[in-house]
Amino acid sequence: MSFVATPLSMHFAEPLPLQSGASLCSYDLSYETYGELNADKSNAVLICHALNASHHVAGVYADANGQVIPKSEGWWDTMIGPGKPVDTKRFFVIGVNNLGSCFGSTGPMQRNPETNEIYGADFPVVTVQDWVNAQARLLDRLGIQTLAAVMGGSLGGMQALSWTLQYPDRVRHAVVVASAPNLTAENIAFNEVARRAIVTDPDFHGGHFYRHGVLPKRGLRIARMIGHITYLSDDVMNEKFGRQLRQAVAESAGAETPYKYTTQDIEFEIESYLRYQGDKFSEYFDANTYLLITRALDYFDPARTHGGSLTKALAHVKAKFLLVSFTTDWRFAPARSREIVKALLDNQRDVSYAEIDAPHGHDAFLLEDERYLGVVRSYFDSKVAA
Amino acid sequence: MSFVATPLSMHFAEPLPLQSGASLCSYDLSYETYGELNADKSNAVLICHALNASHHVAGVYADANGQVIPKSEGWWDTMIGPGKPVDTKRFFVIGVNNLGSCFGSTGPMQRNPETNEIYGADFPVVTVQDWVNAQARLLDRLGIQTLAAVMGGSLGGMQALSWTLQYPDRVRHAVVVASAPNLTAENIAFNEVARRAIVTDPDFHGGHFYRHGVLPKRGLRIARMIGHITYLSDDVMNEKFGRQLRQAVAESAGAETPYKYTTQDIEFEIESYLRYQGDKFSEYFDANTYLLITRALDYFDPARTHGGSLTKALAHVKAKFLLVSFTTDWRFAPARSREIVKALLDNQRDVSYAEIDAPHGHDAFLLEDERYLGVVRSYFDSKVAA
Repeated sequence: MSFVATPLSMHFAEPLPLQSGASLCSYDLSYETYGELNADKSNAVLICHALNASHHVAGVYADANGQVIPKSEGWWDTMIGPGKPVDTKRFFVIGVNNLGSCFGSTGPMQRNPETNEIYGADFPVVTVQDWVNAQARLLDRLGIQTLAAVMGGSLGGMQALSWTLQYPDRVRHAVVVASAPNLTAENIAFNEVARRAIVTDPDFHGGHFYRHGVLPKRGLRIARMIGHITYLSDDVMNEKFGRQLRQAVAESAGAETPYKYTTQDIEFEIESYLRYQGDKFSEYFDANTYLLITRALDYFDPARTHGGSLTKALAHVKAKFLLVSFTTDWRFAPARSREIVKALLDNQRDVSYAEIDAPHGHDAFLLEDERYLGVVRSYFDSKVAA
Repeated sequence: MSFVATPLSMHFAEPLPLQSGASLCSYDLSYETYGELNADKSNAVLICHALNASHHVAGVYADANGQVIPKSEGWWDTMIGPGKPVDTKRFFVIGVNNLGSCFGSTGPMQRNPETNEIYGADFPVVTVQDWVNAQARLLDRLGIQTLAAVMGGSLGGMQALSWTLQYPDRVRHAVVVASAPNLTAENIAFNEVARRAIVTDPDFHGGHFYRHGVLPKRGLRIARMIGHITYLSDDVMNEKFGRQLRQAVAESAGAETPYKYTTQDIEFEIESYLRYQGDKFSEYFDANTYLLITRALDYFDPARTHGGSLTKALAHVKAKFLLVSFTTDWRFAPARSREIVKALLDNQRDVSYAEIDAPHGHDAFLLEDERYLGVVRSYFDSKVAA
């Protein structure tokens, strides 16, 4: 049993200038904290989230009567908590929900205070850099000048990397898991198909579907199905589902189950699984948030303003790094982490790197794997806490 | 300049029983032939097509005045023709369009002669085995008992393989390019997302959109975009498009082009390319055909009725084989071709195998590559013509 977490919110009345040139006049950030900030405020660890996660990183939620809500564990509960690799008995851990999200921080589902209309498609495009700036303001308000570590997986890892560039003096360690220095053309392509599925759903209404009392669920389902395929490895999909028929599961196994010969009904288990994932996602995720977050992924590219040289981009980084990648991750392949490692070594930075032989594809960064958790634990014990 | 090809059609009045238990009461097959059938009818080569191709395999089309129509080359024109690897001065080559297609052979866009209604979603599910049976009847009518070779890439390769199982005495050689003994869970998953995009398009109307005077173009666009990503390799996408901005192409290059910061407009070149491919496809391809053909892919699995053993499934094959795969093909990876090679070797069959180091992913089987074309040429010269 994990500890009980409490979601918090902080209002920011001062405008936040954004990379696009737009600005948010005021905003709220949802966050959670675990553990205690020490006297000299040197033990804070900021956790940055990826596409569909939130500030609820670890612990469980309780209802009004103090009863633990089943399946309410935070998304990195295996990693963070008392006695866990990022030990909340030692570190003060902060989870923060990013701007543009649909899980509490100001986003497209909320009203623009300047117009009193729901933002919808008018919510400004936000970038990894904008998120980091907003996170820095939260730290200011919490009285934290310097992070012991900033840590994230996937898109969260991009934020951790960006912290070391935007605020080199405020980060001692960056832990970048299953991430990349930018998206490949294929990554962007998958994001774009998902976005097109959402935008061309007749219920999207140019992003102002809230006014029409509908949700572009068809598009969200397709987007999630595409995403889900890319989070898993071919191997793990074959192992979990293979060519197993849906019907065969219901029946007592044995003899060969005949095909149903259908183009629209479910025939294979993998189809059932993907449809279920798509349906579930379309019930809780906001379509405009999906567009915003995938665009933040597309846009991240620190080497871009340095003639494409990541080495030059990372020249003024001061943090020490741990990078972790997973062998079967074809979305953010180990080679992409190695690009970051190389650029840091080119600059004589202190960098540790672990390539974990895991079968689960990109999803591995969220799963329990002793070697992976052991690497992070060892880094926090020997380097961050040192 | 290639030769001029002429599409032909053959009517079959006798019903075709299908694997599903349904049957087609009568049907037409579109086909083309190139070269001359020799006196003992021993030089026929049947070409089987993949997802979005047709009987127009080689040559060009001419208009009523005999003028060549630009860009009308057949889909394997690099491979087949006078003096080409499959040399039509020596072989009588037959291209045939499969049942369920939208390019001439009887399919969902045509009227069911029993009801006089357009088939639409009522067109029966067809399998690779059904296609092969229909192709065998075409050969009967052309007076061809035994094929010198049957040949295809991708789904076409599955048909070539199936020929050797269904009609072992009628095939001397099978040339199976960029294919697989069945689809993996990931392959099925991509097909399923594409199908869901089509089926959930409000203009699909359960597959009877013809009656409503609309086309489910949104779904077809998404389906094609997904497909297109899987036909290319990550490497070739990075080389062709990388992170190039659309705007930067229009402008005279030089300084860093600013992002537009948009979630719905095109920002990257790869997005523009994919949208173009999707738009083009949605103009000419039939939605029900897409469902039928992807399902034929899903269903193909000769090992299924042999307890999952491909070796047992291929025990009675008599043909000699050439298999070709491409190193960067992640849709039908070389390992899948090697499974077929191994099963053939387990049965002491005569098998040649070439793994071509090509950067283009699955698409490589349609492209001009000297080593690839050389391997096929050499096989036809030394083995098929021997």
